[in-house]
Amino acid sequence: MNMVALIEKKKTGQALTQEEITFFVNGAATGSIPDYQLAAMLMAIRLNGMTDEETTQLTLAMRDSGDVADLSAIPGIKVDKHSTGGVGDTTTLILAPLVAACGVPVAKMSGRGLGHTGGTLDKLESIPGLSVEEDEATFIRQVNDIGLAVIGQTGSLAPADKTLYALRDVTATVDSLPLIASSIMSKKLASGADGIVLDVKTGSGAIMHTLEGSMELAKAMVAIGKLAGKPVTAVITGMEQPLGTHVGNALEVKDAIDVLSGRTKGALLEVSLLLGSHMLKLAGKAATLDEGKAMLQKALDSGRGLEKLKAMIAAQGGDPNVCDDISLLPQAKVIRQVTAGCTGYTADMDTVALGNAAQLMGAGRVLKTDIIDPAVGFVLHTRIGDKLTPDTPFVTLYAKSEEDADKAEAAIRKAIAISGTPVAVPPLVYAVVTADGVETF
Amino acid sequence: MNMVALIEKKKTGQALTQEEITFFVNGAATGSIPDYQLAAMLMAIRLNGMTDEETTQLTLAMRDSGDVADLSAIPGIKVDKHSTGGVGDTTTLILAPLVAACGVPVAKMSGRGLGHTGGTLDKLESIPGLSVEEDEATFIRQVNDIGLAVIGQTGSLAPADKTLYALRDVTATVDSLPLIASSIMSKKLASGADGIVLDVKTGSGAIMHTLEGSMELAKAMVAIGKLAGKPVTAVITGMEQPLGTHVGNALEVKDAIDVLSGRTKGALLEVSLLLGSHMLKLAGKAATLDEGKAMLQKALDSGRGLEKLKAMIAAQGGDPNVCDDISLLPQAKVIRQVTAGCTGYTADMDTVALGNAAQLMGAGRVLKTDIIDPAVGFVLHTRIGDKLTPDTPFVTLYAKSEEDADKAEAAIRKAIAISGTPVAVPPLVYAVVTADGVETF
Repeated sequence: MNMVALIEKKKTGQALTQEEITFFVNGAATGSIPDYQLAAMLMAIRLNGMTDEETTQLTLAMRDSGDVADLSAIPGIKVDKHSTGGVGDTTTLILAPLVAACGVPVAKMSGRGLGHTGGTLDKLESIPGLSVEEDEATFIRQVNDIGLAVIGQTGSLAPADKTLYALRDVTATVDSLPLIASSIMSKKLASGADGIVLDVKTGSGAIMHTLEGSMELAKAMVAIGKLAGKPVTAVITGMEQPLGTHVGNALEVKDAIDVLSGRTKGALLEVSLLLGSHMLKLAGKAATLDEGKAMLQKALDSGRGLEKLKAMIAAQGGDPNVCDDISLLPQAKVIRQVTAGCTGYTADMDTVALGNAAQLMGAGRVLKTDIIDPAVGFVLHTRIGDKLTPDTPFVTLYAKSEEDADKAEAAIRKAIAISGTPVAVPPLVYAVVTADGVETF
Repeated sequence: MNMVALIEKKKTGQALTQEEITFFVNGAATGSIPDYQLAAMLMAIRLNGMTDEETTQLTLAMRDSGDVADLSAIPGIKVDKHSTGGVGDTTTLILAPLVAACGVPVAKMSGRGLGHTGGTLDKLESIPGLSVEEDEATFIRQVNDIGLAVIGQTGSLAPADKTLYALRDVTATVDSLPLIASSIMSKKLASGADGIVLDVKTGSGAIMHTLEGSMELAKAMVAIGKLAGKPVTAVITGMEQPLGTHVGNALEVKDAIDVLSGRTKGALLEVSLLLGSHMLKLAGKAATLDEGKAMLQKALDSGRGLEKLKAMIAAQGGDPNVCDDISLLPQAKVIRQVTAGCTGYTADMDTVALGNAAQLMGAGRVLKTDIIDPAVGFVLHTRIGDKLTPDTPFVTLYAKSEEDADKAEAAIRKAIAISGTPVAVPPLVYAVVTADGVETF
């Protein structure tokens, strides 16, 4: 088979066959197809699209390009959770301990990736001593011991996706529905879980900015799951603004600890409970969402959720005392309180710009080789719809230097529009998509 | 500047600024932008196009990415000629000696490139001893001595185009009007000639299959020339079938020698005289095309054209005796005469398939590193519209082996459709495009 002919086919809008997709995916995994040909193919896919059949074949070929994890040594139904990515999106650190506390094993492998802010792995690594590198045997033993582990994906999991994902990031081909859907699903299918709950974000800070695009993405991933024989529930949630109030790695760990300690309520907790109850339902632990939510709330109120997080931190070499004393987390040099400075209502947020502000402070990577500063970031004290007066707390900055704080303050002010008239609060949840259909809210 | 942002811009259909184009072209020339980003950009340009302004800026940036040849040491008006490429297209070896014999200096730098069959350089190299590698000083001295030199482009000429051209070939992004126009014109402008005659092919064997596409390409290149201050004449000629009867490197040299010796007439001679007379006109040597054509015909009839070719071959280290004894050219092992085998009229030719047949015999490169076999190829004894009977000579094959001859025979038969009813002869020339407008025939 000839890669130029395959690029030509996609360039002229034709569908690739299963054999052709397998050829190019294996070439990406082994390195036998050069990056420049893969890049041309990715751009042709981005601009000319793929049929549902092609997207599914791409997913399965990427799953099969490496090892598929075998979690059969962990008793029970294992349910994985994945978010398409947002800002201040720390649900894993909250729902994973809560779901584990309800008796459903959580064996989660996360990717690192680039992004505005660090991923789950980067957040966890801000806990002194904690390691996210474990071999599969240790990983399975930890889940069987304490019911919970969150580690980095092993290199042999969907290596084709690893190559293509890295290339997409540097060739402006991230925003392609078939490429997003196949990338997520290939890794989730290779991670070996029995069921998958997807948090598909929509809005200014999401990969898909429109509800229509997010719905299409959710449907595509649910369809792929069905074909691969794994139940998938996709919840479409709002990313018109950061989900949690904290943006930054140690700051988001603090936010999660605050939620698990019962000190913080709000959007982050609500979405975590919703996704967690879908996990309990998929695992057959709860008959209904309400029952699942009640179980999770009980785990939170009793402190069993926080205990699970402590146990996981300890099992992975970290200092569990951070859960009781958050001052043990990395601290920023410069802390600056910023007030609204005007009267009005918090309106639109450019969530990507907020993420970029955190990234520029050092909370996210621009290049793969960049080292993240775990301490920096910011806490937003306002959400869309809030009334503001000049003295209303607006944002607290955690920066490396006064200069960085100046830049971040300017960027954050620019990213948040303030309206003279009241603004409607956007919904937190838009829809749930399963193989049985779509439920909208 | 950030290459990902530039790819993103072109991906979403926006026009790039002069600064942005210069940034990415210089990155291609110096290697500071990786191939995979260039490949993604090329595919985005192929699928989303470029404005006329962008195409011109791309051309000028590629021209300025390396040296611009200074031919001022050669007295007189230097006119270059370029063909967009076809099969059996040997006009340079005929018109260059004829134009030189009329007193207009021909200082021609050719590219090598990939293709169905070899380029002008590969054809010349089939002459025993001949070299196409010369430094600029030797090149200029040769033109001043004998009025004629055809050499390979130096590495420092439009290096950005060199990088992008090589990438286009392996990423299925060859067939893009702005990329074709800018590639050709950047090299021609960097080659230092005062005027340029372009042979823009149209039909099944051309880069542009339709007359409309070829016309657009011709207009784009003439417009670029105008902006760069160089007069450009683009002649649109037919490539519904090979131009000459001979396809293959030594075979095409033989064809050119046959034409210059007066033994062969036909399409190849006609197009050579037409392009040559446009060159004489641009050089101010002939007031009208008819006058130019008469001058060239006289140079041919008197043998002065063939003498010029001999002088050039000798100056470049080759054996000039090939012009008198074509058996001195490389000879194929297997020569096979094939007759039509049926009654009818020669109809459609798939000229690309004919080129591919020669390529597979060894006359062209599949990979850059492939070594061309100068002896192989074929001679077509039929043209579109010809009447055939079973015994009519159809093709003579020149192959490395009987097996190769079998394959080529099958491929050539498949590529030539035979009709039961008479077929119209396609025109040789469709239009001439200059800055003053379009003249159609």
